[in-house]
Amino acid sequence: MNEVILLDFWASMFGMRVRIALAEKGIKYEYKEEDLRNKSPLLLQMNPIHKKIPVLIHNGKPISESLIIVQYVDEVWNEKAPLLPSDPYQRAQARFWADFIDKKVYDAAGKVWTAKGEEKEAAKKEFIDILKLLETELGDKPYFGGDSFGFLDIALVGFYPWFYALETFGNFSVEAECPKLIEWAKSCKEKESVSKSLADEKKLYEFAAEKRKTMGIE
Amino acid sequence: MNEVILLDFWASMFGMRVRIALAEKGIKYEYKEEDLRNKSPLLLQMNPIHKKIPVLIHNGKPISESLIIVQYVDEVWNEKAPLLPSDPYQRAQARFWADFIDKKVYDAAGKVWTAKGEEKEAAKKEFIDILKLLETELGDKPYFGGDSFGFLDIALVGFYPWFYALETFGNFSVEAECPKLIEWAKSCKEKESVSKSLADEKKLYEFAAEKRKTMGIE
Repeated sequence: MNEVILLDFWASMFGMRVRIALAEKGIKYEYKEEDLRNKSPLLLQMNPIHKKIPVLIHNGKPISESLIIVQYVDEVWNEKAPLLPSDPYQRAQARFWADFIDKKVYDAAGKVWTAKGEEKEAAKKEFIDILKLLETELGDKPYFGGDSFGFLDIALVGFYPWFYALETFGNFSVEAECPKLIEWAKSCKEKESVSKSLADEKKLYEFAAEKRKTMGIE
Repeated sequence: MNEVILLDFWASMFGMRVRIALAEKGIKYEYKEEDLRNKSPLLLQMNPIHKKIPVLIHNGKPISESLIIVQYVDEVWNEKAPLLPSDPYQRAQARFWADFIDKKVYDAAGKVWTAKGEEKEAAKKEFIDILKLLETELGDKPYFGGDSFGFLDIALVGFYPWFYALETFGNFSVEAECPKLIEWAKSCKEKESVSKSLADEKKLYEFAAEKRKTMGIE
């Protein structure tokens, strides 16, 4: 009685979050790839406000915004693989840092691959500074929430396959600056729910390189 | 055993959200007014990432970001006045629209009182268009969640006392454009939890007029 459809785009870190959450819960769903330059009538109908992927359609009803979808998935399929911490304070902290990622990491990453000259150096520094704050929050824990993989890991790990493109365009190494964060990302990737949901980093690089060309960068 | 402190600033629509949530739950707390041009060491210590109010400090532990605080308050004090809907889908919708308010309404309102000439007309139109989307979402329900006051009402109603300043600077009437939304706001204000938590609209106007002067607008 559960019909689940995901409107998504392969390269989206936000889409990857939802794919991971669905995989963690073992939910079968129909994946529908969107052409973002020519959005489907279904996408426009299901998310008329933002017209963005990902959208989860559960028994005909749409849910938009990736972090809201992940919480919805966690609340509806609550018998397996809890994603948010059960303690309200820990839950508030997980939401705080996930919100921080949405407010900071995406824009900072975007600047790294579009900025030039001095701006590029500033963009790289900003990006690394943000990751260092996240690394400090991780501390010595295996996952952000402690011993088990959860909400905040899902919120961040979709950016990981993008690091290769950013590092190549920006000529820097995240691992040299944030070794613990990379260790965390690698251990996330050992989980099948993550590895099968993340896009290939070489393909993301090619995708971004193509995009830079059409934007007139290099 | 519950020590609750709120770091806040009287004119903040985000602070008003937290005040309303605490009032709905009947929670006693210590209110600490911040001088945003000279932030207290306590604020900088409790919210080192964003350095912003509101911050709720519950038994020594800080929670930041107003919507996250309201959810925390609802989860910890869960025996009285539920704020989020109990149904996961309704909860996701409430979160979606609250997120929409944070992404759209604040910036659009800011533009109305800082823009000039043609930009000002565009800013007013954008602001009204956003409010009209919210009015459509409200529909014929007394509150956004249905028959009882809740999360999404709290997310939006803090903007209501700001309308007077916006209308005066922008020379327009929200009520003429969105009569049902104003009806909703007025019925929210009949609740003591709301009326005692909202700042006075004339004082907000004076505050904004002073700010416009220091910004060199008029």
